[in-house]
Amino acid sequence: MNNVLVAQSGGPSPVINASLLGVLDMCRSYPDRFGTVYAGYRGIEGVLKEELMILSDQPEEELALLKTTPSAGAIGTCRYKLHDEGSPDYARIIEVFKAHDIGYFFYIGGNDSMDTANKVSKAAEREGYPLICTGIPKTIDNDVGDPTFQLLDHTPGYGSCARYWALLMQNALEENRAISTSECVSVYQAMGRKAGFITAAARLGDPERKHPLLMFFAESNLTLEELSYKVNDMLVREGRCVVVVNEGFDTGASDFRHDGFGHVEYGASGITAMQAVVNYLNRQKLPVRGQATGQIPGVIQRSTAIFASQVDIDEAYAVGRHAVTVALTHGTGYMATIIRLPGETYQAGYSHVPLADVAGSERFLPQSWITPDQTDVTDDFIRYARPLIGDEMAQIPMENGLQRFARLFPLFVEKKTKPYIPAGL
Amino acid sequence: MNNVLVAQSGGPSPVINASLLGVLDMCRSYPDRFGTVYAGYRGIEGVLKEELMILSDQPEEELALLKTTPSAGAIGTCRYKLHDEGSPDYARIIEVFKAHDIGYFFYIGGNDSMDTANKVSKAAEREGYPLICTGIPKTIDNDVGDPTFQLLDHTPGYGSCARYWALLMQNALEENRAISTSECVSVYQAMGRKAGFITAAARLGDPERKHPLLMFFAESNLTLEELSYKVNDMLVREGRCVVVVNEGFDTGASDFRHDGFGHVEYGASGITAMQAVVNYLNRQKLPVRGQATGQIPGVIQRSTAIFASQVDIDEAYAVGRHAVTVALTHGTGYMATIIRLPGETYQAGYSHVPLADVAGSERFLPQSWITPDQTDVTDDFIRYARPLIGDEMAQIPMENGLQRFARLFPLFVEKKTKPYIPAGL
Repeated sequence: MNNVLVAQSGGPSPVINASLLGVLDMCRSYPDRFGTVYAGYRGIEGVLKEELMILSDQPEEELALLKTTPSAGAIGTCRYKLHDEGSPDYARIIEVFKAHDIGYFFYIGGNDSMDTANKVSKAAEREGYPLICTGIPKTIDNDVGDPTFQLLDHTPGYGSCARYWALLMQNALEENRAISTSECVSVYQAMGRKAGFITAAARLGDPERKHPLLMFFAESNLTLEELSYKVNDMLVREGRCVVVVNEGFDTGASDFRHDGFGHVEYGASGITAMQAVVNYLNRQKLPVRGQATGQIPGVIQRSTAIFASQVDIDEAYAVGRHAVTVALTHGTGYMATIIRLPGETYQAGYSHVPLADVAGSERFLPQSWITPDQTDVTDDFIRYARPLIGDEMAQIPMENGLQRFARLFPLFVEKKTKPYIPAGL
Repeated sequence: MNNVLVAQSGGPSPVINASLLGVLDMCRSYPDRFGTVYAGYRGIEGVLKEELMILSDQPEEELALLKTTPSAGAIGTCRYKLHDEGSPDYARIIEVFKAHDIGYFFYIGGNDSMDTANKVSKAAEREGYPLICTGIPKTIDNDVGDPTFQLLDHTPGYGSCARYWALLMQNALEENRAISTSECVSVYQAMGRKAGFITAAARLGDPERKHPLLMFFAESNLTLEELSYKVNDMLVREGRCVVVVNEGFDTGASDFRHDGFGHVEYGASGITAMQAVVNYLNRQKLPVRGQATGQIPGVIQRSTAIFASQVDIDEAYAVGRHAVTVALTHGTGYMATIIRLPGETYQAGYSHVPLADVAGSERFLPQSWITPDQTDVTDDFIRYARPLIGDEMAQIPMENGLQRFARLFPLFVEKKTKPYIPAGL
């Protein structure tokens, strides 16, 4: 019997803690297989620093609230990149695992996090340390591996973000149709890096295509000039327009900053895609009276539990539980996945893929789901995404006008090793 | 017995249609005093164009849904400015009123809309046309007249926007505390033009001041450099920081565009306050590892019914009803207002002020509610604003995963006058 360590990294999601609770609950249901469940505080950084929270001893009512507590505030997250095999970080991780008898390591995250999990799994093998390392997907971007959608249909977090966009767009289109002549173009910037899944979810706010809505995906390869033609064409026809632009849409701007993995940090751009589009449109003469105005929901779309999809919450919890099954059944080196069962009615199933296949992988909005004019998605996409956002609003516990988040006690395990300064900090 | 015309203008709010319904319901409860209730489609523009929707004959169940239908989609809005007394627009308005026997004109809106209502009231007097013209306040900015707060405590729409910010900030602070080292500064741009009431509402998301939250009000007169000192100081102490910057905070940028009233349209800025702050912070060396990222909720904060405050919905409805009482009791030239009754427990009352006093007026966040360091509000502000956001989530009717908005039939009255092209279009 060994102890368990769970951690997460990358940007948070509204349902990330539901997966955490799934792991914890499942481990606790096998008391003969699993000892104490620890959380690495702030992802792999917490492992390197030996900052391990004790999850097993937290109050049950607080743990239950993890299902509706967004972001990674409960146990933290990071964007720490583990470097090449020669890095002393690996020996350090094994040292900490040994010190606390960690036999199972569950890592929740996206492409980069699976890269981290894969590296840890391999390092343990190299060092001859017995470790079962299992990944749990989490990213609102829906851009993790498997372009066939067979082995991984979608990632937890995407359904809630898509629900945010569905409701946001419904309200945005209602607002846009009200104002005849001044703010004729409303531009919204969607997350998703170079993948258009979130941008595409805007269509769920107007699935019957009653309103003038244009989506510009990073995958469309349109230029800013072509975008402007399409917007102006819509203005001539309808007098108004709502535009959703993927943060990774290439506007020709280049004032970017980068995160710890070397990826563009779009939220820190010197000029955002939204601003480039708004400025381009406003500096030419629009074919109707009025002007373009811009919105960047930014991290709001990934951190607001109010919009959580109940389907997403339930699946995030279930895939966390399933990861424990994968660890017990298949051993180290896999990531648990959500698949879609065949049939007319949407039903999720659970499977797994090798970590190596998803580590650092990318997946894009399939061209077959983008309409020929490049500014909309097909009904096939609607059929894919609609079940993920659920129906009714999720019941979010409230207290004194605010949400009631889980409050975990800062119970940290006593450190048993010498202090270590991670190579990347 | 005369007919009634109701219209609205300016930016929408989540509760604007609750006031509309209040007017309609109250008028219908005096069938011996009021005839048909019409709506000017898209504000005063609809009056000028004689585009009058018939509200009285709409299905009851659709009208009831107006209470939770955000924005002005139901009857539209505009940003049309009535010019000086010599404009032919005034004679045109009277012509349309005469043609449809309009004896009561209710206009829902903010400072500029009250200017319009006041001008229409005066024009009718000049022309000797018997008209009772009554204003109904509506602005998320909370910046309409009466700096004493005695005659007008707050405007409908502000409570819902403040609730949006309270919940947004709660989630934003939870997200910010999770990420240790990459996105250390999250910058959010708040609406409110040159008034800081919305920016201040961020404090409602962390009323006990547990998190590093800094607010930069337009009223603070800090420079971008001073802002940066304060952010860096917080970073040194806490390692992270959430910044809320008023859209009207003076960053020294000047690439502005203007609306029909000549006001800056902050949403259409060539460089927003958020972008100026993010760029300034990122281009210097932050005292901790990481970078600043930015968000602009923009019109989302004024159009999303999901965050509507039940207190705000109820008051918006009640002030609409009260406006009808004001019209019957005091005659033309007043705006109905919400006041705060004395006592420990929050209770709203209703009063009125002369339209002339609020037309084009402005109100700012009182200096006494801003802390000496200029980056926070006092507990007096919290006591003022907290009751306005309510407690539980408002029950928003849903249908097939989306909100169920009121669907009014496009029932327009038959035109009786010759076509007219408004001077300002």
